[in-house]
Amino acid sequence: MTFAEARALFPVLDTVAYLNAGTFGPLARPVADALVAGVEHDLADGRIGKAYFEETMALREEVRAAFGRLVGAETERIALTGSTTDGCGIVLRGLGLTAEDEIVTTTDEHFGLLGPLGASPARVVVVPPDPERMAAAVGPRTRLIATSCVLWTSGAVLPLRELRERCGVPVLADGAQSVGAIPAGADGLDFLTISGQKWLCGPDATGALVVRDPERLGLLSPSSFSQSAYLPDGTFDPHPGARRFEPGWWSNGTLRAMLAALALRPVWWFDRAREATERCKRLLEQRAELVAPDAESTIVSFRVDAEAAAPLVERLREQGVAVRDIPGRGIVRVSCGWWTSDDDLDRFVAALDG
Amino acid sequence: MTFAEARALFPVLDTVAYLNAGTFGPLARPVADALVAGVEHDLADGRIGKAYFEETMALREEVRAAFGRLVGAETERIALTGSTTDGCGIVLRGLGLTAEDEIVTTTDEHFGLLGPLGASPARVVVVPPDPERMAAAVGPRTRLIATSCVLWTSGAVLPLRELRERCGVPVLADGAQSVGAIPAGADGLDFLTISGQKWLCGPDATGALVVRDPERLGLLSPSSFSQSAYLPDGTFDPHPGARRFEPGWWSNGTLRAMLAALALRPVWWFDRAREATERCKRLLEQRAELVAPDAESTIVSFRVDAEAAAPLVERLREQGVAVRDIPGRGIVRVSCGWWTSDDDLDRFVAALDG
Repeated sequence: MTFAEARALFPVLDTVAYLNAGTFGPLARPVADALVAGVEHDLADGRIGKAYFEETMALREEVRAAFGRLVGAETERIALTGSTTDGCGIVLRGLGLTAEDEIVTTTDEHFGLLGPLGASPARVVVVPPDPERMAAAVGPRTRLIATSCVLWTSGAVLPLRELRERCGVPVLADGAQSVGAIPAGADGLDFLTISGQKWLCGPDATGALVVRDPERLGLLSPSSFSQSAYLPDGTFDPHPGARRFEPGWWSNGTLRAMLAALALRPVWWFDRAREATERCKRLLEQRAELVAPDAESTIVSFRVDAEAAAPLVERLREQGVAVRDIPGRGIVRVSCGWWTSDDDLDRFVAALDG
Repeated sequence: MTFAEARALFPVLDTVAYLNAGTFGPLARPVADALVAGVEHDLADGRIGKAYFEETMALREEVRAAFGRLVGAETERIALTGSTTDGCGIVLRGLGLTAEDEIVTTTDEHFGLLGPLGASPARVVVVPPDPERMAAAVGPRTRLIATSCVLWTSGAVLPLRELRERCGVPVLADGAQSVGAIPAGADGLDFLTISGQKWLCGPDATGALVVRDPERLGLLSPSSFSQSAYLPDGTFDPHPGARRFEPGWWSNGTLRAMLAALALRPVWWFDRAREATERCKRLLEQRAELVAPDAESTIVSFRVDAEAAAPLVERLREQGVAVRDIPGRGIVRVSCGWWTSDDDLDRFVAALDG
């Protein structure tokens, strides 16, 4: 697949300089086609019958396997989720934490992680996203380090595998801004969340959770998809592996669309994403202060006055450029993907200058 | 809207005697159109920008209001969910139950309720689905009666408002087989779950939870949609009302499709559903033993040998009749909706006899 062929997969790129995959990725035609085909099937033939359910269950297994290949994890360690928030909640509820326990996190986390942290009974220890400060915050009561691989605010990359080795504490890695954006495996992590709809350009409300040792995590929010047999008091035999943690149902079409999205990625995806990001940084550093200039992610954030951020994002949007601001931080965030062209970036800086 | 016009909304009814809304309702063309329009929008214009998000948030409020009107509850008491399982889990986690507490349920619940019950620390007291037995099981430690309004196995209807008044204990009513099937309001219930994709013929993975007093239920699984402001340790200001309990995101198209589904219902829906159910019972009682012949629901279940149930369902399916079996119970279940025709029922009994 050439770069031009890749671009042509995404109709929205014809009109928008789409630099916000950190929120939602652009949709590709094969992904949309799978969604529409699913709706048409369900309309004409119904959502019924053993064959339909068995096919849907087989599709779930295919999606698990595809997520697993993406991050180098066995299928048995993958649970489908609707969001990284789902994944964080599953882990935090399942660890059996008490008020005696501590979790180390950073000042720069998304509420999708922070909400589940705050809802857990453990004490949340918040430090700046600096590996030394994080390691220093780990003490005898620390049961978990819970943080992003790539910070949603600045794009900074945290060395989570090294932190885990150094501190000897389990790590929950929120992969919302890493998986699909940079080469990001599950190796050396205890838990990794994946967003389907961001860098992987999948349908809305998709994702996965990688659990290194599914048998050792409690299952506090079982769904019908968790069990193979149950008693009338709600005790049950969980499915083997991580699929027991799956919170619900996805339509046949949504599953096919997620598979189509996971199959899009050309072999040159990482090189192109890195080139686009580096070019974005070179263009921006002449115009603004970058928040994390050396970060090896695909997010380029720059500083503006706190009150100026949202109006700037709106002004850019009116000129066909999609970026976002980080509320309350005086930060505008630019997301570069393997589909990002030089022209997208030129339009962005022209709009910025204009 | 005439009955013929109503039938014409559902293309699947042209070929299938669709008697399984208790699992998934038939999809109507306006619902499918909304889903496809959503995909086409997202493909061409992206899932981006302040206007898009504000519109999606406004759609959520419209869907809450529409669910609320359906069950006679204020919009502020409605949380969108992906399933009745979601709703049961939100309630069970939020009640702050301990091992000292008891929950009364019945022998005939779906795992969507039983799973969350079993995962709670409370003792689950299981009795047959008989109001006298249920009331007798309520004791000083009972914190909740948690059961279905209409049993998914037999179609029997439980008098939950009366039980609540008589026992003075909060009631979680699983409305999976009642809301949209029979006139079923939230009045007199503490918690009511609603399935979007069953009797309401909505898109996959939709539903709602009605919470009588949202401020008194703990929020143990917050999502980004739960809060209006938060601190770096995960403490947050919840949104007023029940929307704080919403677990995640639905696409713009899914929300529009749910609205379209909720707008389908003709004024005569209940009369027609009752007529179809009564006719189904009359046809069946000559041929099989009904499980709950006097139940005023839209489910008609009949007994077969336990091993014969699944093969019978498959045989009917091959003849274009969609019903289901209840695993392990020797029960085949027939769901009659306001779209069910005499011909559907005649095809069903002809296939049964054949």
